[in-house]
Amino acid sequence: MLRLFHFNKLSILSSKASTFLPLIPIPISKSVKSQMGSYSTSSSSKLLFRQLFEKESSTYTYLLADSSHPHKPALLIDPVDKTVDRDLSLIHELGLKLVYAMNTHVHADHVTGTGLIKSKISDVKSVISKASSATADLYVEQGDKIWFGDLFLEVRATPGHTLGCITYVTGDASDQPQPRMAFTGDALLIRGCGRTDFQGGSSEQLYKSVHSQIFMLPEDTLIYPAHDYKGFSVSTVGEELKYNPRLTKDEETFKNIMANLNLSYPKMIDVAVPANLVCGIQSKAS
Amino acid sequence: MLRLFHFNKLSILSSKASTFLPLIPIPISKSVKSQMGSYSTSSSSKLLFRQLFEKESSTYTYLLADSSHPHKPALLIDPVDKTVDRDLSLIHELGLKLVYAMNTHVHADHVTGTGLIKSKISDVKSVISKASSATADLYVEQGDKIWFGDLFLEVRATPGHTLGCITYVTGDASDQPQPRMAFTGDALLIRGCGRTDFQGGSSEQLYKSVHSQIFMLPEDTLIYPAHDYKGFSVSTVGEELKYNPRLTKDEETFKNIMANLNLSYPKMIDVAVPANLVCGIQSKAS
Repeated sequence: MLRLFHFNKLSILSSKASTFLPLIPIPISKSVKSQMGSYSTSSSSKLLFRQLFEKESSTYTYLLADSSHPHKPALLIDPVDKTVDRDLSLIHELGLKLVYAMNTHVHADHVTGTGLIKSKISDVKSVISKASSATADLYVEQGDKIWFGDLFLEVRATPGHTLGCITYVTGDASDQPQPRMAFTGDALLIRGCGRTDFQGGSSEQLYKSVHSQIFMLPEDTLIYPAHDYKGFSVSTVGEELKYNPRLTKDEETFKNIMANLNLSYPKMIDVAVPANLVCGIQSKAS
Repeated sequence: MLRLFHFNKLSILSSKASTFLPLIPIPISKSVKSQMGSYSTSSSSKLLFRQLFEKESSTYTYLLADSSHPHKPALLIDPVDKTVDRDLSLIHELGLKLVYAMNTHVHADHVTGTGLIKSKISDVKSVISKASSATADLYVEQGDKIWFGDLFLEVRATPGHTLGCITYVTGDASDQPQPRMAFTGDALLIRGCGRTDFQGGSSEQLYKSVHSQIFMLPEDTLIYPAHDYKGFSVSTVGEELKYNPRLTKDEETFKNIMANLNLSYPKMIDVAVPANLVCGIQSKAS
């Protein structure tokens, strides 16, 4: 039922997309992959990248754009409602065209900026995983590619913090940024990971997700998490493989660690999760 | 008198340096330039770079290292006392050899971590400008080069926020990082600049400093300031030339803006400045 809903939603949106996103040639097909835009080019692309911080929830928002594409298509990963004006002002100043406002998962500690962004720029498409059960314009799943100009992100399903967590990874191709970059949400944090005791969380699943989907990436892959509480901005797969105090342990030890964190109830969860299930303040019509 | 003191201090330290820093070949000569290490090589160097954040004072600390050099020599720009353990732990994990703990100026809003770092790693050398009147192991001035492995930073005098402010800029050579990176301290902030009403500040001088020393750099030069209060992590010369709300104005307008900021008295200044004049808790013997 859920799957059918998602499929129908996408079928409708695939035709919408060709109207709203003329900047990005999107061949229409039945798969999510091609609906998100799937083509390649040999032109030299250039990633414009910005890491932005929201202090109250210690959330990182990421801005990525293909600055060598004539229309400079851009996307935001994990925007926060409180910093939407800052983000859109920067996008405007840099002459970018915001195409996607994406979430790694349904956040419990802040309200996503996605809905607010859509209320300000109507042709921006919100993106979240199929498995999240949240409302969005486009749903993605394992293996999907999200193109912006000549650059793309791959989707990797990394559930465990929540059931619908995904990691966005820059493309594995010679014309894509090197080293690769992984936007891990709360699945893998720098020297840590997200809690697994709410929102369909599972320490067993998180362990498998990180080891099979993130730790298998090249060791120089840059890790950009959704949060950091100590002032770190980036890590690498190699570093986390060596120094992550939780995920370097065997699975049983990891599950024990996660079962005994004794964390307090997430203070924002009762406000943030219901809001984020509808992309912040996204209207029903969108 | 001050100049002579600095010169004598450097003369002593130049011979010390060859004892304490065996990892970096430093030809001894009379100039500060060569005392800081001045040699070149055609080997392919690789910058390891980390931006680190201290939330209370919104300070950025920068870690730079030559990761392709066998000894991985590293330096810290603007370390904060409260985050020294974090920084040294990261340096240890990355297998780096910390050589320099540097300040862009005598900070008024936090205590530098330089002294504390020296108390933990005795052969690290503290670095500050000659014009700062602060105590340090090595004093630098306009045009000096600070080598770490096969990479180097240039020193540019950018007074105005304080009399002794300097900007460190990555080298202008084909084997140095591209685009260039400018660590501007409080001289140039993202869409802003440091106040000019304390510590020998001068809006006239700041205007000249930024325009003659920073805005003349290539437009793609990355701007890494000592602080950001809105969650921005980086800008470029091109962006600030276009969008800095103060420094895009003519000099008279800029001076008027700076004279009418009506900022409150810096709450940490009476603690931080005396401490930072002696590199935090640096002992008299060092």
